[in-house]
Amino acid sequence: MKNYESKVCVACHPDAPKATKEQISEFQNNYLEWELIEDNQVPQLKRVYKFNDFIGAVDFTKKIADISEKENHHPSILLEWGKVTVRWWTHKIKGLHENDFIMSAKTDEIYNSNQ
Amino acid sequence: MKNYESKVCVACHPDAPKATKEQISEFQNNYLEWELIEDNQVPQLKRVYKFNDFIGAVDFTKKIADISEKENHHPSILLEWGKVTVRWWTHKIKGLHENDFIMSAKTDEIYNSNQ
Repeated sequence: MKNYESKVCVACHPDAPKATKEQISEFQNNYLEWELIEDNQVPQLKRVYKFNDFIGAVDFTKKIADISEKENHHPSILLEWGKVTVRWWTHKIKGLHENDFIMSAKTDEIYNSNQ
Repeated sequence: MKNYESKVCVACHPDAPKATKEQISEFQNNYLEWELIEDNQVPQLKRVYKFNDFIGAVDFTKKIADISEKENHHPSILLEWGKVTVRWWTHKIKGLHENDFIMSAKTDEIYNSNQ
């Protein structure tokens, strides 16, 4: 198992290799809550995180925003009362890159550290 | 024209009156960027706000979160790089209430004060 949460994102180019089906499956086998979805034919990793109130969801959103800026890799974050839905993918390659595994793992780490 | 941005939300009950079609039209005639959509048969007011970077979008999200807690009325906020999509509706009545006009107007006011 790769410890993606301990890695950092690399600069990504439009010709960077997309994650293979095997790499995606391996990721999902180890990070069980992440769902593989498609949006406009672009594969994305999606996870819904639950909270007991709005403030908890807001604080989590802020923390994801902070690491996104730090790693210069940005997700979509849907903030609602008691719920945050995070999607990771790499715009430049219109698909999934190892950076997305890294950021998904880091997002889990932030969530777990607050539970 | 009603200056919704200067009003405050009232406590809402499941039997509170839904906004009428005429009230919604009047709101949209004065707050031009808000689109009336339906999600799971629930009418919602939706607006997309644009930014030049991620940080601007994050700061705006934080400010909406602050007024949401203050007024105890919470939207869905989709945060992306350079873009924030806000939706207001009232869960308790599964529709639109005057509170949603008030909060939409206040959201515009926050955006406009930063431009």
